[in-house]
Amino acid sequence: MNLVNGVESDAISVHDRGLMYGDGVFRTFTLRGGKPLLWWRQYAKLAADCKALRIACPAAGVFERDLAAIAARFPDCVVKIVVTRGGGERGYAIPVAASPVRVVSASPLPDYPQLHYDRGVRAHLCRIGLASQPALAGIKHLNRLENVLARSEWSDPGIAEGLLRDADGNVICGTMSNVFLVRGGELVTPDLARCGVAGVQRELVIELARSNNIPVRIASVSIGELLCADELFLVNSVIGVWQITALDRKTWIAGPMTAQIRRWIEHAQDR
Amino acid sequence: MNLVNGVESDAISVHDRGLMYGDGVFRTFTLRGGKPLLWWRQYAKLAADCKALRIACPAAGVFERDLAAIAARFPDCVVKIVVTRGGGERGYAIPVAASPVRVVSASPLPDYPQLHYDRGVRAHLCRIGLASQPALAGIKHLNRLENVLARSEWSDPGIAEGLLRDADGNVICGTMSNVFLVRGGELVTPDLARCGVAGVQRELVIELARSNNIPVRIASVSIGELLCADELFLVNSVIGVWQITALDRKTWIAGPMTAQIRRWIEHAQDR
Repeated sequence: MNLVNGVESDAISVHDRGLMYGDGVFRTFTLRGGKPLLWWRQYAKLAADCKALRIACPAAGVFERDLAAIAARFPDCVVKIVVTRGGGERGYAIPVAASPVRVVSASPLPDYPQLHYDRGVRAHLCRIGLASQPALAGIKHLNRLENVLARSEWSDPGIAEGLLRDADGNVICGTMSNVFLVRGGELVTPDLARCGVAGVQRELVIELARSNNIPVRIASVSIGELLCADELFLVNSVIGVWQITALDRKTWIAGPMTAQIRRWIEHAQDR
Repeated sequence: MNLVNGVESDAISVHDRGLMYGDGVFRTFTLRGGKPLLWWRQYAKLAADCKALRIACPAAGVFERDLAAIAARFPDCVVKIVVTRGGGERGYAIPVAASPVRVVSASPLPDYPQLHYDRGVRAHLCRIGLASQPALAGIKHLNRLENVLARSEWSDPGIAEGLLRDADGNVICGTMSNVFLVRGGELVTPDLARCGVAGVQRELVIELARSNNIPVRIASVSIGELLCADELFLVNSVIGVWQITALDRKTWIAGPMTAQIRRWIEHAQDR
């Protein structure tokens, strides 16, 4: 089920700047029992990303009507929201009269193996480096070719995610997730000032950890630090929390901090 | 007029990876008297860019049928070709059965002032730096937010183009054009190994100059070298050749090499 500006349709104009230039932003999250999980955080991030690109984000209530229409038919699903700058004349200049286009789509909940949660996942260390672009870093925009190329580096279904580094070799994020290290009771997550996407789930983990007196450091993370971590875990709004228990040849056992973070997140989502 | 996979339509699926991720490439060029200018070069670049992203590029004949349909109604126009990886399931992984989608669109020829050709244009030096991504450099892909942000830096209609630098301050290209310097009878054009788009017109200028015994150097170009150039000019397949005669406070007078290059290009296009 797809809604384009609130109307059921699976078509968008070939002149839409989302297609032409990737000129837009998106969000992916879960509907459970008809309820969009962490909706206010999702909307706040969508609005912030739109603002960063100077796209006029529709009001929260506009999306809530779309979500209600989806929930009526698919109470449990993955929702993707795309907001583009809309149509316009050929050329990079932003049209004065640009009118944003919103696409809200439902797709089935993924069927991840329970072992991903119980025993952790295997990850691949990607070869492609993320380019440094402070003007776009952190934004979940539609220019995602780096993620596509990174994800194309493996086809082994036993590998659940790929880890990306920047050009200096610092670890930044997964192809579709943010990453945390546990070291001596502290959490460390990569600084995303120059590349990567700052996800809602990352923000939630930082807040939950700090409110439970677990220190969180946002810093550059070398591959050496990554491999020395006590635990390593991935988060996003659809997978939840996956511990990485194998990265190339290095292995870890399922650890207590990842499990604790997962419980806190599940509790926060249920509120 | 828009053709989507050969059928007149202005709609593309909301699930197309061109929209979702900018997972595709494009070309923009001119139809004059029903003839697509430099078509073989355009097609060769389209095919090379598809190959770089491992998208199966449709055969030249497929596009030629589309172009003939457009030429029958709009013999003089700007044509834009977009090739995306097509639709697919949610997620960055490239679908095994991905079937490329082609969009061929006609739009009116732009009405650039004759003074742009006779006296040159004013350019703006953009503040945003281009990110360094060797895996995507040179490719005319659909991830063009940097160009959108760069173009949004000015609204003065007296400024015809913006020049972009990389993070090290080296000049790379215009927002929609490639750039050449003339210095002591030699041409210099920026190396595009780490960012920028390697356009068809740039390739043609390099070939024409060399075949006329004008040396061409592909190199890093500092802003100092740029400002010391005897002449400075921009090329693309729609504008042709524009000399830059004003860049912020620096000015130049219309020079003989730019005029010579323009004559060679016009001659090459007419063949």
